[in-house]
Amino acid sequence: MNKNPKIAVFGGGSWATAIVKMLCENLEQVGWYMRNQSAIDYIKENEHNPNYISSAEFNVNQLNLSSDINKMVKYADILIFAIPSAFVKAELDKIKVDLSSKIVFSAIKGIIPESGLIVGEHFNKKLNIPIENIGVITGPCHAEEVAMERLSYLTIACQDEAKAKILGDCISSNYIKTKISDDIIGTEYAAMLKNIYAIAAGIAHGLGYGDNFQSVLMSNSIREMKRFIKKIHKMKRNINNSAYLGDLLVTGYSIFSRNRMFGNMIGKGYTVKSAMMEMSMIAEGYYAAKSAYLLNEKNNVNTPIINAVYQILYENKNPKTVFKNLTELID
Amino acid sequence: MNKNPKIAVFGGGSWATAIVKMLCENLEQVGWYMRNQSAIDYIKENEHNPNYISSAEFNVNQLNLSSDINKMVKYADILIFAIPSAFVKAELDKIKVDLSSKIVFSAIKGIIPESGLIVGEHFNKKLNIPIENIGVITGPCHAEEVAMERLSYLTIACQDEAKAKILGDCISSNYIKTKISDDIIGTEYAAMLKNIYAIAAGIAHGLGYGDNFQSVLMSNSIREMKRFIKKIHKMKRNINNSAYLGDLLVTGYSIFSRNRMFGNMIGKGYTVKSAMMEMSMIAEGYYAAKSAYLLNEKNNVNTPIINAVYQILYENKNPKTVFKNLTELID
Repeated sequence: MNKNPKIAVFGGGSWATAIVKMLCENLEQVGWYMRNQSAIDYIKENEHNPNYISSAEFNVNQLNLSSDINKMVKYADILIFAIPSAFVKAELDKIKVDLSSKIVFSAIKGIIPESGLIVGEHFNKKLNIPIENIGVITGPCHAEEVAMERLSYLTIACQDEAKAKILGDCISSNYIKTKISDDIIGTEYAAMLKNIYAIAAGIAHGLGYGDNFQSVLMSNSIREMKRFIKKIHKMKRNINNSAYLGDLLVTGYSIFSRNRMFGNMIGKGYTVKSAMMEMSMIAEGYYAAKSAYLLNEKNNVNTPIINAVYQILYENKNPKTVFKNLTELID
Repeated sequence: MNKNPKIAVFGGGSWATAIVKMLCENLEQVGWYMRNQSAIDYIKENEHNPNYISSAEFNVNQLNLSSDINKMVKYADILIFAIPSAFVKAELDKIKVDLSSKIVFSAIKGIIPESGLIVGEHFNKKLNIPIENIGVITGPCHAEEVAMERLSYLTIACQDEAKAKILGDCISSNYIKTKISDDIIGTEYAAMLKNIYAIAAGIAHGLGYGDNFQSVLMSNSIREMKRFIKKIHKMKRNINNSAYLGDLLVTGYSIFSRNRMFGNMIGKGYTVKSAMMEMSMIAEGYYAAKSAYLLNEKNNVNTPIINAVYQILYENKNPKTVFKNLTELID
């Protein structure tokens, strides 16, 4: 592969915007697809995204912006997808260009509802992209802090570590450090599951549980995550590495976490519907809770926290009662 | 051992006060030693500790208060020590009563400076208390939240688990859940080390690092803690259990943590001396950093975070420079 590859980011949200910013530190040209043409027009005129982390400023001459996904796929050697998992399928369905020679990285934290697969698996099984051309970009990293250029560590996973290394070099800068991993399955599941645990943390907070309980909840969450991922893809991994534990913590503890915020509203008594209406962003964990719960019906791993979140979000159970029960199931 | 043992708490600080409160939920009489007679007089009159978690109210008829440590040692079958590690030796030196038949629990998070031993080891090696009569009470648990009766999980460790169980039953209540462990060495070291990592988290915050970095720091801290403890006492333990990871998180992330606050002041530019003067409570991690660093000189475990805190607190190195260097040593 070319050491100076053409890279394009697909998505118009916070995380997509943050990744474009990282790439602009190193590349002369960065492709950026978003479906919203008016946002593109706004960026061209005002040099920042109108809707997400708008304090991140761009030199528009570096940006190759387009709302034509096929044009962007054609342009790029490396495609980075950062679209909410619920909308990925609809976007992928638009693609008519052959993807088999492309390198595709997922920066999406979730399961594609239509296929029940994580994004990497979906690319491999549904779009026939060879597994060695599929990778994952994962945190711990709130996009908001990338905008502020606060030091962040990303993990780039790919079974072909040379490809991970190339992308890592393209996004490293004085405020981004990158680490390479070969665990594409585990890092992607971790990125999905942590959003469920962040919702749980938010619910607990909303119900009035304190810091002592939160720490127990997070300690149980990482053990649950380890069991869940081990069942799906057993390999040697240190679950306490930044891509797993760090990602859980930044989401579970940070005020920037929309999943935690969503959970907090649920805990305070909002209905799921009203909490979703109040928030202008999508809480990925809402979809992840369902996907993980359904997936686990056959895997049968002990997942009391995922079960609790599922019961509250999808079975209309009372958060207070569910959490009272949960406190007996964790330690 | 008697199933209804006489229990006394030694210490007048937040954590001692919280443990007395927990015991009062179950016992008719709780012994409480503190050296400050005027605080005892105040409690008898006002039904709360004047200096620490003063919102915790007591029925003084339940309390057997005394500033005579020998009287209290004589009274009790189970002694719970919750005195800052720097002052333990001076208090223990006052004891003339034979301790060999007593059961002694440590609720202290630190190393006794004079002996360089954690409290359990000190009891065993210096006071000849049999190892099966020594135990540890550990969090994650901020005393402030016990005062508010917020649900908290404690771990009670003793090689003789029956003894841990008895004490566990005495402190369990509708807001305290207890878990039994046989890892007295590991839980006690974890309780000590977490304060150093909380200082590191505070320094990072004070220097302007954000949530993304904090999560990486915590993820590295738990791995460092695991290495450190494994070297000292190798046994099967899950470092992600609440007594280890939970305790680290509650201290590293909570606004109630005085160690984090102390670190924050250092990061913001206070000298060690002025930060200590500003705070009315002792940051245990200050002493722990020195003890852990010295201990590790012979163990030679890779501990970049402990080293960084030590350099700042004891070698007068610039926090900004030390942390800039630390960012290269963690991932």
